[in-house]
Amino acid sequence: MTRVRIDLFASLDGYTSAGQTPDHPMGEDWGRLTTAWAATRTFHERVFGDTSGAGTTGVDDSYAAAHFEGIGAEIMGAAMFGLHTFPDDPDWRGWWGDRPPFGTPVYVLTHTAPRPSIPMPGGTTFHFRNTAVADVLAEATEAAGGRDVRVGGGVGTARAFLRAGLVDHLHVMIAPVLLGRGARLWDDLSGLERTHKVTTEVAESGTVHVTFAR
Amino acid sequence: MTRVRIDLFASLDGYTSAGQTPDHPMGEDWGRLTTAWAATRTFHERVFGDTSGAGTTGVDDSYAAAHFEGIGAEIMGAAMFGLHTFPDDPDWRGWWGDRPPFGTPVYVLTHTAPRPSIPMPGGTTFHFRNTAVADVLAEATEAAGGRDVRVGGGVGTARAFLRAGLVDHLHVMIAPVLLGRGARLWDDLSGLERTHKVTTEVAESGTVHVTFAR
Repeated sequence: MTRVRIDLFASLDGYTSAGQTPDHPMGEDWGRLTTAWAATRTFHERVFGDTSGAGTTGVDDSYAAAHFEGIGAEIMGAAMFGLHTFPDDPDWRGWWGDRPPFGTPVYVLTHTAPRPSIPMPGGTTFHFRNTAVADVLAEATEAAGGRDVRVGGGVGTARAFLRAGLVDHLHVMIAPVLLGRGARLWDDLSGLERTHKVTTEVAESGTVHVTFAR
Repeated sequence: MTRVRIDLFASLDGYTSAGQTPDHPMGEDWGRLTTAWAATRTFHERVFGDTSGAGTTGVDDSYAAAHFEGIGAEIMGAAMFGLHTFPDDPDWRGWWGDRPPFGTPVYVLTHTAPRPSIPMPGGTTFHFRNTAVADVLAEATEAAGGRDVRVGGGVGTARAFLRAGLVDHLHVMIAPVLLGRGARLWDDLSGLERTHKVTTEVAESGTVHVTFAR
């Protein structure tokens, strides 16, 4: 049974990263939100390709490992792919590098004209879709072949799936900082604890892991 | 050395209780925010006067016990005393009952005309002050005689002291619910982690305890 899963980062005051620029494609506050995540051994292995065993192995790492497990397809917004960075360059292949860390079909939601799919080394293929979230989810679920579908972000894309009631498992990593700016994660989600079971756990880093699962 | 301490309740989405009415002096959402707190053995003993040993004894209770330890004076807003409930009744003694659970001088901030202090059974005396927060803090610190001063709330009063940089120890109990309404706790407090050390801990109840201490 395919589940729809989301992992997000937020600050204690409920903000996700703000200040996206070409130099900071994930936003200027991204580093402060993801310090503990990027320090995990799993992240070192899966994203940096560092197999030396470096990185933390505690609670944060157990969530990082789960993040990469059992995913058969990914959905993300255009900004997360990097489509807005060079919107007029048909050869731009996003900012995930030559070997993106997905290894699955990745459906990029876009309001711009369709463009051809981009197969990448490592098993990732980027597809571009201008359809309703339920429709792209149906396609991704089919492609996932029984594994899970991850909605990778950004927060606007994640909230669109959450508002539509399509998400089975939401995991939020709350960094113990107060950003005071950014996109507000929790707006429109009040009462989610009535349809999903909430669990909370604190990592050695101080990161608070909150999970809503049904 | 007197410290200024605050304990507050919030939801995951950063709201404190909304919907204050005479029937719900702390707001309609208060119960959802304080379930785990009210379930502690310390709360049963100190607020209900229940010495049977009933109540939880885990992480929540350790914070509840700390809440009542070492306080020499209290400061609260007029709404928390209950001044707005019967504003024209000079005999109204607030809604904390015949034996308020403070046992210290309590300074009630008010913009209305001064009224006489009210001594209550159990060692609590309510004083009414229409002065700047720094001035009432100086008076409360003097009265505390070396013990700590607690700013009891509500959230507007707490934030006034926080914004003024007067708080040494802020403890927030975050209930794993999304209220979607209420007063926003974190506004204006961004960067507090730069002046205060942040610690996070999860209780058996799922409550997230966040402490900012300097």
